[in-house]
Amino acid sequence: MASPEIEVLTQALARLPGLGPRSARRAVLHLLKKRETALVPLLRALELVNERLATCSTCGNVDTTDPCAICADPRRDQRSLCVVEEVADLWALERSRLFPGRFHVLGGRLSALEGVRPEDLSVDRLIARLTAGGIDEVVLATNATLEGQTTAHYIAERLEGFPIRLTRLAHGLPVGGELDYLDEGTLAQALRARRPID
Amino acid sequence: MASPEIEVLTQALARLPGLGPRSARRAVLHLLKKRETALVPLLRALELVNERLATCSTCGNVDTTDPCAICADPRRDQRSLCVVEEVADLWALERSRLFPGRFHVLGGRLSALEGVRPEDLSVDRLIARLTAGGIDEVVLATNATLEGQTTAHYIAERLEGFPIRLTRLAHGLPVGGELDYLDEGTLAQALRARRPID
Ligand SMILES: [Zn+2]
Ligand SMILES: [Zn+2]
Repeated sequence: MASPEIEVLTQALARLPGLGPRSARRAVLHLLKKRETALVPLLRALELVNERLATCSTCGNVDTTDPCAICADPRRDQRSLCVVEEVADLWALERSRLFPGRFHVLGGRLSALEGVRPEDLSVDRLIARLTAGGIDEVVLATNATLEGQTTAHYIAERLEGFPIRLTRLAHGLPVGGELDYLDEGTLAQALRARRPID
Repeated sequence: MASPEIEVLTQALARLPGLGPRSARRAVLHLLKKRETALVPLLRALELVNERLATCSTCGNVDTTDPCAICADPRRDQRSLCVVEEVADLWALERSRLFPGRFHVLGGRLSALEGVRPEDLSVDRLIARLTAGGIDEVVLATNATLEGQTTAHYIAERLEGFPIRLTRLAHGLPVGGELDYLDEGTLAQALRARRPID
């Protein structure tokens, strides 16, 4: 019914998480009707982000600068590092504004099922950061899933011998819970009660 | 936490209907992580639509051509016209594939509350289309709301004297229901049972 261009736009929006075909159609109609206040601003924002999108070569965050805004911020605690599985987890912790240090994004979690091996995660780069020195504490903030905990144990082993305080988020996280879905209160409690790796 | 460019993009997405701040953040993360398969296709689709976006000068539909794909389609029944309040209603009817004719978008509904007067709707253009001839039937498919029904009555008065069959959607529509929210079955029933304006 609509032109091919509008169909393609509807499909591109429908593939975003949280939007289905129906809400994508509503969104497209909104964009068409509010060209100057909705369509053009969204287009310009996407252009700018696409132009500048970069993966931080220090921590693995995605941002429009490399190093990312967090790594480049001199007010962040340089001595404390929080290790997360995914960029989404970094953003979840960052939204809570609870962690004053910097991050390290592993890029996944060990998984026999999904065939994710240690060399698929940025563990070597984490060790390089620690070897470079200046870091006192590493918080392992992997998910409270079996795979997340396996990953934490693996990293704890690899980091043995470094003169750091190695902690992980307290088991206040609901079992099977993924960081990105937790409310701020739960995250806050888990972070406050973080404890040394056994 | 994120760069200004990413914040602006998140806000632009959060303003779309059906997306809130939380789902907008998820959508942005998805776009950043899937640059080639999500961000770039969405960007290109928006560019193309923005470049070609046009309001059909015949029926008031929004499309990437003028006349729109519906008005330009020779297989559509040229003798039958369906009058709707908004482009969203046209799209809802079009999805049901039940109406073989063409459309006329009023651009709203009469509303004392919102200060919408007859001259704010494209009624004169509707009359011009009828005066030009070739149209046998007009289906008034305004919403089953008080304002929609008032609008239908007003248009029916204005169209008196034209040699047309004037119908409106059957009262199978739920009271207060808006076309764009109805399932296809309800729309089909209402369209099948359409009856002449008293
Ligand atoms: Zn960084
Ligand atoms: Zn048209």
